[in-house]
Amino acid sequence: MDNPNILVTNDDGIYSPGLKILFDAVKPLGNPIIIAPETPKSSSGLGITLHKPLRLEEVNVNGLRMWSTNGTPSDIIYLAQRIANKIDVAVSGVNIGDNTSIQVILSSGTIGAAAQAALIGVPAIAFSAAVSSAGELEAVADFIAAGARAVVSHVMRRGMPKGIDVLSINFPREFSPNTVAKTAEAARLRYEQYLDERVDPRGGKYYWLYGEQKNPRPGTDVYVVNVERNIAVTPLYLDLNANKCNAHDDLHDLINSITTAIRSLFPP
Amino acid sequence: MDNPNILVTNDDGIYSPGLKILFDAVKPLGNPIIIAPETPKSSSGLGITLHKPLRLEEVNVNGLRMWSTNGTPSDIIYLAQRIANKIDVAVSGVNIGDNTSIQVILSSGTIGAAAQAALIGVPAIAFSAAVSSAGELEAVADFIAAGARAVVSHVMRRGMPKGIDVLSINFPREFSPNTVAKTAEAARLRYEQYLDERVDPRGGKYYWLYGEQKNPRPGTDVYVVNVERNIAVTPLYLDLNANKCNAHDDLHDLINSITTAIRSLFPP
Repeated sequence: MDNPNILVTNDDGIYSPGLKILFDAVKPLGNPIIIAPETPKSSSGLGITLHKPLRLEEVNVNGLRMWSTNGTPSDIIYLAQRIANKIDVAVSGVNIGDNTSIQVILSSGTIGAAAQAALIGVPAIAFSAAVSSAGELEAVADFIAAGARAVVSHVMRRGMPKGIDVLSINFPREFSPNTVAKTAEAARLRYEQYLDERVDPRGGKYYWLYGEQKNPRPGTDVYVVNVERNIAVTPLYLDLNANKCNAHDDLHDLINSITTAIRSLFPP
Repeated sequence: MDNPNILVTNDDGIYSPGLKILFDAVKPLGNPIIIAPETPKSSSGLGITLHKPLRLEEVNVNGLRMWSTNGTPSDIIYLAQRIANKIDVAVSGVNIGDNTSIQVILSSGTIGAAAQAALIGVPAIAFSAAVSSAGELEAVADFIAAGARAVVSHVMRRGMPKGIDVLSINFPREFSPNTVAKTAEAARLRYEQYLDERVDPRGGKYYWLYGEQKNPRPGTDVYVVNVERNIAVTPLYLDLNANKCNAHDDLHDLINSITTAIRSLFPP
């Protein structure tokens, strides 16, 4: 690829330092184009915007030229075609907070943007870090930039590994000479979700949704990043069909009961 | 189950006739509890709301008692615990518009709600119809109610078929004595996405995101519902790990390049 176009996006919005880290990481590899949401769109999953018009505005954030939009991370994959003829690679993040477990992956805007890119055939890599603030992210920026550059450079030279749609990379909150990268399967659940009920000054009830961590199982992405404090590389394939691996489960009776119910509404 | 609690939700909001169709379908089977978004939340995927408080208000819509919330379909799965001690089955829909293909499934709020329920172990079924308006949905309400009741009744008696997290049922836009239900694998892509660029009265550019249908492959959910006009039953399993079916893809070089990049930042 001759000066390839590298889309840089995220779900934390244009003011997140994660964009600058990814920009620095990929700058030596091609032409980075930053497009990000004007406000944070965490937990937007692969949501796209069909019911309202999308805007795209050129802005300068701390010396970094980028495009700001009212759309979601997934919208950005399609908005990118107005900025560049062709996107060669899409990188998303670096998310403030790790995106581990299927539960979190399915609702993550960071991974959502990468998945949306993968669906239209663009090699896509999502980056997240197990930090809880912009400051904590900046403290490990050099390590993450180096790691991200290694991944993107590899994918640009060799292509995405076979059978993989999205590479999700989760960095730990601190690094040492012993920090290693390893493949880690996404756990199924990360949080038990709870509701915190409160009462507003006018006497109305409202609720905060919050998660409490479950104990992670060794070998999973949650464990590798948060317990071992290593770098988890999780290869994702975008297929939810249940019959992929095993023989068809026997759905015959259920299927037949539907057909019978419909037919019973017509006169014999 | 003794008078089981059946959560009825959707992503089209409290005014969609789809809620009434599902309510009628499951009323003979247990205790339906309707909780739905106060405004349409189409394409919200599995997005959950962490950054703002959630509200829950009892309302009466066309004689139907239900709960209205500012949250997403996925939030509703957790809000439900404030209305009922335990949810035994969750049904979502009937969505105005079919939810076929992985592309659409991953961003669908209807399926998102069902997937969120499945993640916490609740049997979950999503219902959608290949119609384009509330009126078109109401015209086939009896058929859909009969089909939905057959599915829910089956799952309540026999449990979810093994290895399946979510059953996604897509109904056609019209029914005949020859209409049958069949298993259909989710296609990967349904739409090519495009941007329509326009200019507002003040001279500012804005964009509409829209999809153009790709030619569906026989046997897929898109084909069964939209070409054959039959009922597609698509069993989903919530796992995106790429290494599920085949041997690990060789990620060794990529993994090693990350570890090497990190190590190079420490003095020898």
